[in-house]
Amino acid sequence: MNLPFETRSLATVQRSLAEPATEYPLLPALLRGCPESATEEMQYPLELDYDYGRVKDVTFRRESTWADWEELLPPRHPKADMPVGGTPLVDVSALAPAHLSGRRILVKDDSRNPTWSHKDRLNVFTISAALCEEAKTIIVASSGNHGVSAAAMAARAGLNCIVLTMPEVSGAIRDMILGYGAFPLFLAADDRWPAMRALAELPGIYPVSNLTPAHTGHPWGPEGYKTIAYEILADLDGASPAAVVVPTGYGEMIYGIYKGFREAFLLGHIDRMPRLVAVEPSARGPVHHALQQGRSTVTVEAGPTVQLGTATTVNGYRPVAAIRQNRGLSLLVDDEAALRAHKKLGRCGLWLEISSGATLAALDQIEEFENDGPVVLMGCSTGLKEPSTPKENRATGADLETLRATLMRDYGFEL
Amino acid sequence: MNLPFETRSLATVQRSLAEPATEYPLLPALLRGCPESATEEMQYPLELDYDYGRVKDVTFRRESTWADWEELLPPRHPKADMPVGGTPLVDVSALAPAHLSGRRILVKDDSRNPTWSHKDRLNVFTISAALCEEAKTIIVASSGNHGVSAAAMAARAGLNCIVLTMPEVSGAIRDMILGYGAFPLFLAADDRWPAMRALAELPGIYPVSNLTPAHTGHPWGPEGYKTIAYEILADLDGASPAAVVVPTGYGEMIYGIYKGFREAFLLGHIDRMPRLVAVEPSARGPVHHALQQGRSTVTVEAGPTVQLGTATTVNGYRPVAAIRQNRGLSLLVDDEAALRAHKKLGRCGLWLEISSGATLAALDQIEEFENDGPVVLMGCSTGLKEPSTPKENRATGADLETLRATLMRDYGFEL
Repeated sequence: MNLPFETRSLATVQRSLAEPATEYPLLPALLRGCPESATEEMQYPLELDYDYGRVKDVTFRRESTWADWEELLPPRHPKADMPVGGTPLVDVSALAPAHLSGRRILVKDDSRNPTWSHKDRLNVFTISAALCEEAKTIIVASSGNHGVSAAAMAARAGLNCIVLTMPEVSGAIRDMILGYGAFPLFLAADDRWPAMRALAELPGIYPVSNLTPAHTGHPWGPEGYKTIAYEILADLDGASPAAVVVPTGYGEMIYGIYKGFREAFLLGHIDRMPRLVAVEPSARGPVHHALQQGRSTVTVEAGPTVQLGTATTVNGYRPVAAIRQNRGLSLLVDDEAALRAHKKLGRCGLWLEISSGATLAALDQIEEFENDGPVVLMGCSTGLKEPSTPKENRATGADLETLRATLMRDYGFEL
Repeated sequence: MNLPFETRSLATVQRSLAEPATEYPLLPALLRGCPESATEEMQYPLELDYDYGRVKDVTFRRESTWADWEELLPPRHPKADMPVGGTPLVDVSALAPAHLSGRRILVKDDSRNPTWSHKDRLNVFTISAALCEEAKTIIVASSGNHGVSAAAMAARAGLNCIVLTMPEVSGAIRDMILGYGAFPLFLAADDRWPAMRALAELPGIYPVSNLTPAHTGHPWGPEGYKTIAYEILADLDGASPAAVVVPTGYGEMIYGIYKGFREAFLLGHIDRMPRLVAVEPSARGPVHHALQQGRSTVTVEAGPTVQLGTATTVNGYRPVAAIRQNRGLSLLVDDEAALRAHKKLGRCGLWLEISSGATLAALDQIEEFENDGPVVLMGCSTGLKEPSTPKENRATGADLETLRATLMRDYGFEL
């Protein structure tokens, strides 16, 4: 592959997740799934393959950083240079449910990324591909983490970015899109996909979000999520956790995490795989239903849920493949349980998306983990991006008696 | 000092920044400034002193972390265990003004902290002191970064937290306060200080924000900002930057950064100090006016400004001392320039507080730096905490011609 920059990446080809696992050159990125196997109903995504036999510099030790994993990641264009990841594990063992007490529970706080979510790990590589393909403008359909992350990474790389969003998008997300100099198009929810497909046909416009009925996304993107696995291993000084619990929408993240651990295993750095646990809102849950029905993808009803980060009605094949290969778990969490757990995490100093709270709630459904080691919960994004509930803030008087009475009456203080 | 935990901290005493530099035991923290020198008009803050002669494990190399600086930080209570800092330097040299072209310009992106601002570096140590003094409830007056950070760190440590805020506080900040389980009291702006002083008298209530007319704050807090200097040195592999440009309100941060570099200098790790540059909104700017008038602190009019993070009308003595000792600069930036620079940083993938944009704007006022090395701009907090401007998001149609026309008309695309 002839790239306009030096890279230590050992990525070789795009490979279909379908059977047969047809291979394609690394670029152009295949944005509509595997061309050979795609039908009208089902499109299989692609992943990157690497020349694993030539890996020589990879380490997973406490001092390891992304520089130590360059061989196992897609080529990174010099303009896609935003520092991403390196997020800490935060101990929340105090929140373990009674039947798991004594087990170390850690939150991987991915709200400490450049745009305050895990999506930066994906977009740094989709943007790298866009740069390699000499795109001038990227396009992304998202009113959440994905859109703002793509906007930031595009801005940094000097690319235009069109964000297909909705008129009812929160002020926070709208301000972020504009803040990164991207161009929002406000469209009714049902209009976004036709608009995406129409604009993607224009010359020079490069999509970094999905174009197909079954989610396939960009083949380079999920490779970025492997760094979550690598960083967890580094923070645990090379030891494998018992499990990683992952809020799951289209399922690119859980696939990337699975693949990262799998590579560490195949390269001999760990001697067992952690259990992967996908968590979806019970009102939706396409991955869960696909697994139950023995299918690759399904479409579910758009049931109402406050777990906005994972409120998808379709899934891609990636999470299904990851959970089958890992003998992982797929759990549904209802909004009430997610909100309760989200609140508990806040009381531990972590104010995240509600959908990340669902990972803690999911522990109630897991009897025991077969392996030792900590359980890692993915904390994906800051609570600051959630829509704020309008509410009146009632002023109180400043004299001590009024203050004391307010604290005792409203908050149960004993003063 | 008898602490209920092991520590490698070499902190010995609290020492007044007044003349004479009277010393006091490390605890209880003196929250109303130096008792010996305090008058009704002027209160001098205190800092911590250390047994520098016994320092042995401190390093400032690429792999250095907070564990390598424990000797130079206040004792950290085991319950104040939130991972803080470790934030990256992001290259924005492309934004250098013409007369500084060729100079490396880096943003220290402190929005990647647990509550997405630099304030976590301060609160991890104020909360540590509160725990050492067996406080049960902390109190903080803030409608911004400081309040939400204190709330999070208190929650993690198992302490109650009362936040004195205003009815007009943004939904984002209000939601964060509640999300961390803190107790907001909504007070008119002028009522906050009397309320703070009244509540601070109640037994078991421990203030972590200022109690005095001249800002003195908590003596342990600014020590946390030394880690900004340490991390910059580590990221530059031990080399001193040419300058650090710091958004300045009460001025605890610039003092901490100054002190951190000063320690590295006195311990022989660097052979010259970087120039410290304080940046304030031109509508306020108490530090600037204090320096101009040769005074320790001044009070200025509450002129209107969008630089909310640094919109203070009084200063503490710390920034004045730091800039005098460092022969640093104190610059005023007007809102228009701050907004323009803030927008440029967004186009570089960094969407921060407007007051952080002022650091980039300040470069226009600096002819040259006397030393080689990069210039570091402090990026303090995420733009997500700024109030959002209400705005109508006009829906557009999904057909290609309408989309194309919208992009060309509204955003100047050529399609």
